[in-house]
Amino acid sequence: MTTIAVLGAGSWGTTFAKVLADAAVTGGQETTVTLWARRAEVAAEINEAHTNTTYLGETALPEMISATSDLAEAVTGAEIVVLAVPAQSLRSHLGVVRENLHPAAVLVSLIKGLERGTDLRMSEVIAQELAVGPDRSVVISGPNLAMEIAREEPTASVVACAEESVAERVAALCNNAYFRPYTNTDVIGVEIAGIVKNVIALAVGICDGQKLGDNSKASVITRGLAETTRLATELGGALETFSGLAGLGDLVATCASPLSRNRSAGRLLGEGLTAEQVTEQLSQTAEGMKSGSAVVELARQHRVEMPICEAVVAVLEGKLTVDRLASLLLARDLKAEGK
Amino acid sequence: MTTIAVLGAGSWGTTFAKVLADAAVTGGQETTVTLWARRAEVAAEINEAHTNTTYLGETALPEMISATSDLAEAVTGAEIVVLAVPAQSLRSHLGVVRENLHPAAVLVSLIKGLERGTDLRMSEVIAQELAVGPDRSVVISGPNLAMEIAREEPTASVVACAEESVAERVAALCNNAYFRPYTNTDVIGVEIAGIVKNVIALAVGICDGQKLGDNSKASVITRGLAETTRLATELGGALETFSGLAGLGDLVATCASPLSRNRSAGRLLGEGLTAEQVTEQLSQTAEGMKSGSAVVELARQHRVEMPICEAVVAVLEGKLTVDRLASLLLARDLKAEGK
Repeated sequence: MTTIAVLGAGSWGTTFAKVLADAAVTGGQETTVTLWARRAEVAAEINEAHTNTTYLGETALPEMISATSDLAEAVTGAEIVVLAVPAQSLRSHLGVVRENLHPAAVLVSLIKGLERGTDLRMSEVIAQELAVGPDRSVVISGPNLAMEIAREEPTASVVACAEESVAERVAALCNNAYFRPYTNTDVIGVEIAGIVKNVIALAVGICDGQKLGDNSKASVITRGLAETTRLATELGGALETFSGLAGLGDLVATCASPLSRNRSAGRLLGEGLTAEQVTEQLSQTAEGMKSGSAVVELARQHRVEMPICEAVVAVLEGKLTVDRLASLLLARDLKAEGK
Repeated sequence: MTTIAVLGAGSWGTTFAKVLADAAVTGGQETTVTLWARRAEVAAEINEAHTNTTYLGETALPEMISATSDLAEAVTGAEIVVLAVPAQSLRSHLGVVRENLHPAAVLVSLIKGLERGTDLRMSEVIAQELAVGPDRSVVISGPNLAMEIAREEPTASVVACAEESVAERVAALCNNAYFRPYTNTDVIGVEIAGIVKNVIALAVGICDGQKLGDNSKASVITRGLAETTRLATELGGALETFSGLAGLGDLVATCASPLSRNRSAGRLLGEGLTAEQVTEQLSQTAEGMKSGSAVVELARQHRVEMPICEAVVAVLEGKLTVDRLASLLLARDLKAEGK
């Protein structure tokens, strides 16, 4: 029997609870899945109607998922604790998690973002607050638009942990007919890929808003992935991660999808709205708009050139107009690729 | 004064002639650009109306481009000979080219495909027929949908030659405000990337036709690029090429674009049409449908696993139904990424 808690009943947390529940049936595993929702009415809807209409419309959730709005209750006894809360509020939840955490629990982060102020990755925040070592800290990332997975459209993903056997254990728990996990030991690379892709998605969205075509967007994606790779390898990540599902795969899915909040925010910026107007129109701040300046700060500290992220942050800060962005991206001296 | 001949007045050949002509103005270079069209009426339209409506609609071509339907005349005296004819008809044109070729001419291939029967890359066919060494053989490839470049939407591309100074010379000749060449010395990698991406685009199109979402397509793009890389490195290509513009960049642009013939052909296959019905409906055979079996043959010879290309060829040959393709792509044992 494996006891799993998923903390956060937004679109990705709820969908991942479904992935775990379906995987338990597929694999014939004895598993319980408890989903923590901040709001009691969301937990009640999941328990009674087996839906979470706020985030996933009419998607039918497996009946074996039980929901609660009591964080301590969800965490107590869980051997696997999956974190799916917003990046900037993660730390504030970890106090209650710590007090109720099973001593051997494995922590799994689905969260993409850098903490503002500290510039820390989510696994670093978790390590600080919960004192769990790298062998109990897992990150999952890939081309994983929640709504599509909720519809059971096939996809693949990366389950990363410094300790491969732990990655394999978590991969086995989420493997089902429509969700295909691959293991990886490069936690840093997988996390950096997930963070920076939101900023690159803003750049691609800006190209959209400027009515630029697929060549321009593909160039931004390619050069954007190259600068992400430069940052991650400088921080200790592995090159291969970036040609994989958490790097290339997630970036391509996000930049192609009309469901991506970051790309939508970029498109509005590209049409000439300010950052404030975009946040107002979308009723929320896209994650890349929050993490962007932290990414650029981190790059500067490590002397890594990230011209696309720099340009996006300059647009967000009102220091660069969007019509100058595209030409700026191409306005470098003739040189060899990769240099 | 640099004399350039562009052979082939289809959409990419004509657009590239425009890129060269605009680059001459940008760079203040003394250049002549002669475009060879197979059909005399196309040459006449380019000379008189400065348009090529068959392929580029109302796009205004620079007046400095002169066109001819006389292949020998176009080649005579040209120091740079750009090849933009269909892959399967390249060899048949090279006899006339050979007889009129300037002894120091540099050959530039814009063509993506393997020759059927011989499984040779275009630069290999050129080397065989014209006896030019690697220091005079250049390949250009990247996220280069012709119609978008004709509209002067900014993009980047790769100019590859074993001899870097020759790549730099050609890059300088095509560098302008909307076309940004990067040099590279990996001719094999750049050519293999351009060939296999048409087959991967068919797979992505099939996902489209099957109404699968952006996660599934991003997974196919990622795993497709991985198998392309395995083939190319086995043949002597460089790993880095595949995370660059000719690898990732071209693949992403092709797979995103409604303008791509290969993706459109894949979509029709995904909707259940046979290969013959697709060719009839599109009034032509998409290049990936022609090169697919040659790619799979080459992979088998070199013992490289290419499950996505194998699956696409099986669909083309009527041996696999499209509804089984997606699940087949995900139906592998749990394992580490990259293995």
